[in-house]
Amino acid sequence: MAKEITPRSENYSQWYNDIVVKADLAEQSAVRGCMVIKPYGYAIWEKMQHILDGMFKETGVQNAYFPLFIPKSFFSREAEHVAGFAKECAVVTHHRLMNDPDGKGVVVDPEARLEEELIVRPTSETIIWSVYKNWVKSWRDLPVLCNQWCNVVRWEMRTRPFLRTSEFLWQEGHTAHASAEEAQERAEMMVHVYAKFARETMSLPVIVGHKSPNERFAGALDTLTIEAMMQDGKALQAGTSHFLGQNFGKSFDVQFADRDGSLQYAWATSWGVSTRLMGALIMAHSDDNGLILPPALAPIQVVMVPIYKTPEELAAVLEKFEAVKKELAARGISVRIDARDTVRPGFKFAEWEVKGVPVRLAMGARDLAAGSIEVSRRDTLEKASMPIGDVVAHIVDLLPQIQQNIYKKAIDFRAANVEKCDSWDEFKEKIQTGKFLLCHWDGTPETEQAIKDATKATIRCIPVDSFVCEEEGRDIYSGKPSHRRVVFAIAY
Amino acid sequence: MAKEITPRSENYSQWYNDIVVKADLAEQSAVRGCMVIKPYGYAIWEKMQHILDGMFKETGVQNAYFPLFIPKSFFSREAEHVAGFAKECAVVTHHRLMNDPDGKGVVVDPEARLEEELIVRPTSETIIWSVYKNWVKSWRDLPVLCNQWCNVVRWEMRTRPFLRTSEFLWQEGHTAHASAEEAQERAEMMVHVYAKFARETMSLPVIVGHKSPNERFAGALDTLTIEAMMQDGKALQAGTSHFLGQNFGKSFDVQFADRDGSLQYAWATSWGVSTRLMGALIMAHSDDNGLILPPALAPIQVVMVPIYKTPEELAAVLEKFEAVKKELAARGISVRIDARDTVRPGFKFAEWEVKGVPVRLAMGARDLAAGSIEVSRRDTLEKASMPIGDVVAHIVDLLPQIQQNIYKKAIDFRAANVEKCDSWDEFKEKIQTGKFLLCHWDGTPETEQAIKDATKATIRCIPVDSFVCEEEGRDIYSGKPSHRRVVFAIAY
Repeated sequence: MAKEITPRSENYSQWYNDIVVKADLAEQSAVRGCMVIKPYGYAIWEKMQHILDGMFKETGVQNAYFPLFIPKSFFSREAEHVAGFAKECAVVTHHRLMNDPDGKGVVVDPEARLEEELIVRPTSETIIWSVYKNWVKSWRDLPVLCNQWCNVVRWEMRTRPFLRTSEFLWQEGHTAHASAEEAQERAEMMVHVYAKFARETMSLPVIVGHKSPNERFAGALDTLTIEAMMQDGKALQAGTSHFLGQNFGKSFDVQFADRDGSLQYAWATSWGVSTRLMGALIMAHSDDNGLILPPALAPIQVVMVPIYKTPEELAAVLEKFEAVKKELAARGISVRIDARDTVRPGFKFAEWEVKGVPVRLAMGARDLAAGSIEVSRRDTLEKASMPIGDVVAHIVDLLPQIQQNIYKKAIDFRAANVEKCDSWDEFKEKIQTGKFLLCHWDGTPETEQAIKDATKATIRCIPVDSFVCEEEGRDIYSGKPSHRRVVFAIAY
Repeated sequence: MAKEITPRSENYSQWYNDIVVKADLAEQSAVRGCMVIKPYGYAIWEKMQHILDGMFKETGVQNAYFPLFIPKSFFSREAEHVAGFAKECAVVTHHRLMNDPDGKGVVVDPEARLEEELIVRPTSETIIWSVYKNWVKSWRDLPVLCNQWCNVVRWEMRTRPFLRTSEFLWQEGHTAHASAEEAQERAEMMVHVYAKFARETMSLPVIVGHKSPNERFAGALDTLTIEAMMQDGKALQAGTSHFLGQNFGKSFDVQFADRDGSLQYAWATSWGVSTRLMGALIMAHSDDNGLILPPALAPIQVVMVPIYKTPEELAAVLEKFEAVKKELAARGISVRIDARDTVRPGFKFAEWEVKGVPVRLAMGARDLAAGSIEVSRRDTLEKASMPIGDVVAHIVDLLPQIQQNIYKKAIDFRAANVEKCDSWDEFKEKIQTGKFLLCHWDGTPETEQAIKDATKATIRCIPVDSFVCEEEGRDIYSGKPSHRRVVFAIAY
């Protein structure tokens, strides 16, 4: 297996695409903008789903499933939402094909035109709130805490695997509450669930904060976000949680009888993460040799490669491997013994390196004689030989160390690339070199827009749990008074 | 909670719909033919998914994800497949909405017409085999064993929740093999996985067999099926597994270099079960009081209802409940304590009965004094009082007993309603009373069609593991020679 991964220094964007393909994560399909998630990539996504799903359920959330299609008229009901979401989307207009009367193949049956067009969901607030109308009559019915794992479609002109695709997989949580306070608490709770997941499971440092009004979700009163730094210094929005006020409650007439008997509109939140997290995972940690996976998300945590000349040597090594595998599996560690006889050990080493398997064990006839085994770490590329009797205990310790080391590397990288900046000239220059800049902002959409027009940089968030900087100052662009610094960066 | 479930004897079809609604499983949405799967229904589906997914993976299957959309031209490639699948489906023709120039709301942007229409997948053989072309070059790349959990759309004029909906959820496995034998073995393996799941997890007796050519999947050389009997004696096809020969390999040019260097087309299988299993589960086991769930699929296996007059009584009962819950949870049993103070115990009893919770525990002040607890079984409606110290051990034994008893009830019901039949006059009468009839068939599509036209009955399968009856005889309709009996029934 030739590695053929473009180095980051040469072409960061191509490096990313190369890893997606070489690590067998995803590929383009015949349908423009829609990707195929290959088994190895999907196994990582499944781990993400499983862990997130458990975290959601611990907060009382239940899964449900709502229709793929949304009647076109629903998009017109919530004025801001329509502007933000009803534009680039897949429109179903017919429900039948027929044999082409002029020859072979099939054509759309013109008789089978739908009375009202259906939109393939780009997000499900409208259809879900049309359902919540049936569920919510009294304060006793609240809160409603639903999540769905599903596919959504937003027609995209320029796509990149995982980062921006026309169809993608995600979860969308939609909650209804009896009070604004409770809804706001839920929106905050969920962004912190995302942050915890990013930090602990993905080894991904994120900044939690509020979006500026310009960057809010269409129809939201407040959008909370987690923002991660990629290795090129650009920002990637990895998850968002929205406080939607009563906008959808009013648009879809979801009213409940409160404890005092009065009729109130329900308060809403929505929150989601998507297969975009896969893009963040790849971009944040990998190196020029390929993918680097935090053990918590690695479908294979330990791979074992036998080195042998004769069938007897192979059998002897495999016997040792099986014994180690059994002990590791008993400790919940996922192990693959790569006993393929169609490729050589060097090919296997390269393949598992590209695929980011955290730990590789290798053993040959000489190791066997010496009672030793070679242990290689993917994150540091360090190798060590050790007595085979020590290897299980070593790996049990090593996996969490790797998990933390990957996090620490990312934290250190970010620390080196976040700076305070108080000069507009400096800003214009530094922002292009891949930095997060902590700057004063006067709070107006106009200033934010002017900065974006001049530099492509946007306010990623107004931080709430790290990089919080409440202090008086002057806007980096307008010079007007400001009460806090916010995070500016160029974003994916 | 008024039960308001129509008795089976009065209107079987309405009984089914009532249970779907009253047990909070699903409801109709604003989109014709698309249902909302509510949290309680979805929790059952999640259990099904989890168990099936583990069974698939044990056989070496990996999950992946393929695009929702299929280019229209793909359907024309496999001649039989197009006839069977490309007709009633959702067609995407445009990719943008715009503000209505004549007023408020949105309209389809006529400028945004797709060059080629996209079909929302009714099943994914075509798009997946277009991808397998990239994956399969050599015999070393085979077998490919992929499955995806996803939504599919088949436009239906008449829909019923779970049984027939325009959008439904399912899994579809698609495998590619180097030989016909290996593909056939895989198709058989998967139908037996389905049968095992139906019998052991769903408590659902099924007949495994081959479909007659008339009833085969579009493009299949052989279709294997599991067929279940509902309480009205009708058959429900609960899962199918297809041997597709080289049809898709040839249509999508999936060729591999075999061990001998020759180029061969890959051999295909596909197999799927859907949310239709939810319909089978409901229809097979439930009674006039509501849903009956086998414990293996019950989201809540044990519910506890306190009976109390004073807050002190409630606190004392809840303390006992918490202790029992902890012990049950430690044994992997899912427990809900229903401490709601907004509804009375009788309401709770009815609600959990309708929802099919296998075991209910109740305890009041008198029980507390006596150290006893009341245990009720949903399947038999039996109640018993026992010392509270015995209840954990009792429930640990009881849950598998309930699982088996539900299976036995269904097996007994089926045994009473499967008959051999050798007279056409008898056939016409009996088939309408809800029977599976084991009859001789001459093997021709014409006879099968004539029987269907006369009675609506179809050949559900040619059995392979139960009700196998290889014997000489004469076709029930044509009188021509026959070598075996097959299963006739009227089907959902």
